[in-house]
Amino acid sequence: MFVTFEGIEGSGKSTLLSAVQHALLAAGREVIVTREPGGTPAGDAVRAIFLKPELTIDPLTETLLINASRAQLVQDVITPALNREAVVLCDRYVHSTLAYQGFGRGLSLDLVRSICDAATRGVMPDLTILVDIPYETSLRRIAARADGADRLEREGAEFHKRIREGFLELAGRDPRVVVIDGERSPEEVLDAAMAALSAVLV
Amino acid sequence: MFVTFEGIEGSGKSTLLSAVQHALLAAGREVIVTREPGGTPAGDAVRAIFLKPELTIDPLTETLLINASRAQLVQDVITPALNREAVVLCDRYVHSTLAYQGFGRGLSLDLVRSICDAATRGVMPDLTILVDIPYETSLRRIAARADGADRLEREGAEFHKRIREGFLELAGRDPRVVVIDGERSPEEVLDAAMAALSAVLV
Repeated sequence: MFVTFEGIEGSGKSTLLSAVQHALLAAGREVIVTREPGGTPAGDAVRAIFLKPELTIDPLTETLLINASRAQLVQDVITPALNREAVVLCDRYVHSTLAYQGFGRGLSLDLVRSICDAATRGVMPDLTILVDIPYETSLRRIAARADGADRLEREGAEFHKRIREGFLELAGRDPRVVVIDGERSPEEVLDAAMAALSAVLV
Repeated sequence: MFVTFEGIEGSGKSTLLSAVQHALLAAGREVIVTREPGGTPAGDAVRAIFLKPELTIDPLTETLLINASRAQLVQDVITPALNREAVVLCDRYVHSTLAYQGFGRGLSLDLVRSICDAATRGVMPDLTILVDIPYETSLRRIAARADGADRLEREGAEFHKRIREGFLELAGRDPRVVVIDGERSPEEVLDAAMAALSAVLV
């Protein structure tokens, strides 16, 4: 089973992913955890490009780079793990690209989707857990991190609000996306995620 | 006007590009010279990924990376230059991706083309000069370079022969591609290229 975790920064999706991983391991499952961009040596090389603040990267270039990382991840990590019936937990996937580069940066959703389809070759999650928080909560939580708030503020509130709305709009169209309120306690968020998982786990 | 130079390694396309550049400059044209992958800071970062021999890069990942570099190049270099009516000379472009990743690596041409179309947003050359040589000539010329022959031999003769055939097949379908015999003298190759150029230069 392939499960992706989505949400804006500070939503708690990475913390949730880690908690889900431990719960599944405790239940005796083989669990593979990965993230985007990255997860392979080629993907990490792509990730390093994004971490260079001096580089100007066009939104379309961003979309193609993320999908380059994704193609390698699908090929080397996700598909082999699914073939041996492991559970794959991935921190961000196609919905993030649609939300950030589509709704956030304003690229056409059809264009973004066509690039994602080429990269995934149809390997899509069985379940996507969207941890939803308002922008204000994101900003407050990220402010506690070293450089996080700077980065969020640099992009502007409108950008992050569009991304949150984008995620919710995508969730509304796709029955495989479960939305969890990220303002609830970590325990409640984990319970909601495990309930969604057990509905699809075989 | 947008002119691309294509061919297998050792074809002499880069030498020809340089000779064409000087001829056009001597005729008083503004000329922009660029290459793929690269040509922008983001593109050079992508190029650096390809130069790491320790990285395993899937053909689909290769295609997406090259097109990430291309999207930034089209946006930052090619389109602005064409808008001010400069002549743009580019060392490799879409035909190389179709030949190497399609015919060479065996990806479906439709898949490669859909990714290229997304990256270029329809910015295609007015003229493509394909400098054609047999694989044996390529091997002989590259042997004179420091590490060139090793690289060609590592990939195998069949791979390079498929790419050459691919270029010729693409040229047969596209009236904007002019094929020049790269075994002729540099002067004859330049004369043929300038004749092709003057037929489309306004």
